[in-house]
Amino acid sequence: MPRFSAQSLRDVAQGIFQAKGFAEADAGTIAKLLVSSNLRGHDSHGFRVIPAYLKRIDEGAIVPSGQVSIEYETPTTAILSGHRTLGHVAASRAVEVVLEKARAMKVSAVGVRELEHVGRIGAYPEMIAEAGMVGLAYVNAQGWGRLVTAFGGVERRLGTNPIAVGLPNPLGAPILLDYATSTVAANKVRLADERGVDSGEGWIVDGEGRPTRAPQDFLNGLGMLLPFGAEHGYKGYALGVMVDILGGVLAGGGSAAAHREHLDNGTFLIAIDPEAFIAKEEYDAQVTGLVKYLRATRPLPGAPAVMIPGEYEEQHRLRREVEGIEIEAGVWEEVAAASTELGVELPESLD
Amino acid sequence: MPRFSAQSLRDVAQGIFQAKGFAEADAGTIAKLLVSSNLRGHDSHGFRVIPAYLKRIDEGAIVPSGQVSIEYETPTTAILSGHRTLGHVAASRAVEVVLEKARAMKVSAVGVRELEHVGRIGAYPEMIAEAGMVGLAYVNAQGWGRLVTAFGGVERRLGTNPIAVGLPNPLGAPILLDYATSTVAANKVRLADERGVDSGEGWIVDGEGRPTRAPQDFLNGLGMLLPFGAEHGYKGYALGVMVDILGGVLAGGGSAAAHREHLDNGTFLIAIDPEAFIAKEEYDAQVTGLVKYLRATRPLPGAPAVMIPGEYEEQHRLRREVEGIEIEAGVWEEVAAASTELGVELPESLD
Repeated sequence: MPRFSAQSLRDVAQGIFQAKGFAEADAGTIAKLLVSSNLRGHDSHGFRVIPAYLKRIDEGAIVPSGQVSIEYETPTTAILSGHRTLGHVAASRAVEVVLEKARAMKVSAVGVRELEHVGRIGAYPEMIAEAGMVGLAYVNAQGWGRLVTAFGGVERRLGTNPIAVGLPNPLGAPILLDYATSTVAANKVRLADERGVDSGEGWIVDGEGRPTRAPQDFLNGLGMLLPFGAEHGYKGYALGVMVDILGGVLAGGGSAAAHREHLDNGTFLIAIDPEAFIAKEEYDAQVTGLVKYLRATRPLPGAPAVMIPGEYEEQHRLRREVEGIEIEAGVWEEVAAASTELGVELPESLD
Repeated sequence: MPRFSAQSLRDVAQGIFQAKGFAEADAGTIAKLLVSSNLRGHDSHGFRVIPAYLKRIDEGAIVPSGQVSIEYETPTTAILSGHRTLGHVAASRAVEVVLEKARAMKVSAVGVRELEHVGRIGAYPEMIAEAGMVGLAYVNAQGWGRLVTAFGGVERRLGTNPIAVGLPNPLGAPILLDYATSTVAANKVRLADERGVDSGEGWIVDGEGRPTRAPQDFLNGLGMLLPFGAEHGYKGYALGVMVDILGGVLAGGGSAAAHREHLDNGTFLIAIDPEAFIAKEEYDAQVTGLVKYLRATRPLPGAPAVMIPGEYEEQHRLRREVEGIEIEAGVWEEVAAASTELGVELPESLD
């Protein structure tokens, strides 16, 4: 697979999205976030989505000129509209607003509607945590994104409705929780298919609810993802419903029951200032203690050291910042073709 | 098993806790919440905990005269201390405070420390949702409550660190998410042991990390609960760590890394006023649509109708309000003995 430095990939993405009509700063936001997914080992949400984004820009589903606006606000809350810009841009703006309000008021909540794909949602609580706050994020997909059955059912009903939480970590990168409330994100099944491998055990069922590991049983439009938790799938299901109400109903784009022509990644963010509860030095001391204590857990026989949530991402980032990022050959071909068409210069592979 | 009306059980509990030194209103709160667990099908958190509570009152771990106080507050936040009263009392007071602040400020967060067992944590977001707000709850147990291994490890590290969310439901009881971030609450394993049955598949491992279904492999103090999610157990683990930081570090009682002599169910509550985001009529219409849409999901072959989160609890409540509540014979013997000793009148079994 071709391999590139993070900066050279950011330059390519910046060029592509600017050429497609995004303002320079917005293209920069998209480039930074796409590459941050690759850096952190979540290739499913990285460069491989670019061809699909370009298609949706051409179809008018993503509107590069969309200007994010505040539709309604109070000192602690706001609703933003992305006016159909890419979600990366609108959700990044929402992070700024939720942080501003939490700095002033200690706790805040912001909903965003009319925005397209937000990408890796962990990126937003990560930004909130890097600014010293606790960040929570809930993202739905309305009726456009029905992929997951209700627990006990056999019908595509909910989006993968991810949740993410970021917590400031004095030892380094934020403690980060970031996952779909389905067993996995749909892109992980697509990636398995692209790589010609089976999907994981328990990820999907076919159209009759029978367990399967063939990605095509899902990608054919008949199968579905399961809510996470296996026989305790009511746990993932309940989180998914909660996400639909926060990210859909409250943020204003609508729930999974609402028919939609386009993807609208309704996003709901909460920020909490830990210093309203505990002095920073004390927070840092206690979280440092907790992190060390968790890492010191005796590992399963033959297993590697126990990690804290977010460490998987941070280990990938540290390695890929140095070694570069591999991009699937097929993905790179498409991105390279689009770049050439748009007059964007391509980097050489590091290999 | 003996069977009693909800009201007669509330009367017994009220009498017992008042006789042990709780103020009338506080005993009423405890009685209401214990019976609400039995009513909702969560017997693990109902009457069967009374003997253990009485023991901990006698030992001084639970302080019936503890008065809940606000230690520090801002317009949107507060930290309360329960001064070692039973958690039911302190967390119920926290619900009042978080609601008051959310009514005024739209979003609020309250932490509570120095409180004993809070019982079924779903009860608190349920109260918040019944008051028309979205409620979130996170409860840790500090170093006293280490029962769950870190994902990938073989050592008791975290409490069962439950989360709960309540969302107003115009069709009836709140939409309710309420579960441990371990596969199950520890009391479910104890209940299996009392009933002489195996624990569920994947609930526990023995002291060497080997899967087992024998409750004693856990109750012997060596085995441990797993974070929920099976091979995706990093999902439950990440939530558990988040709970430890919100309910432990922020609320002020300390994380699982902190040694504690007594149980301190550090509790963190968030309340959000939906009307800061969407008009009540519109919220009601959209959530009604979502609930009907989820219930209409085609069920798995031979399976009952798909439920919404919280419907399990509500179905039990409706039935048990009418049919009464069965109490394990052994539990009833202990409660009856304590009642007699304390001069509390006992009801006749309905059978």
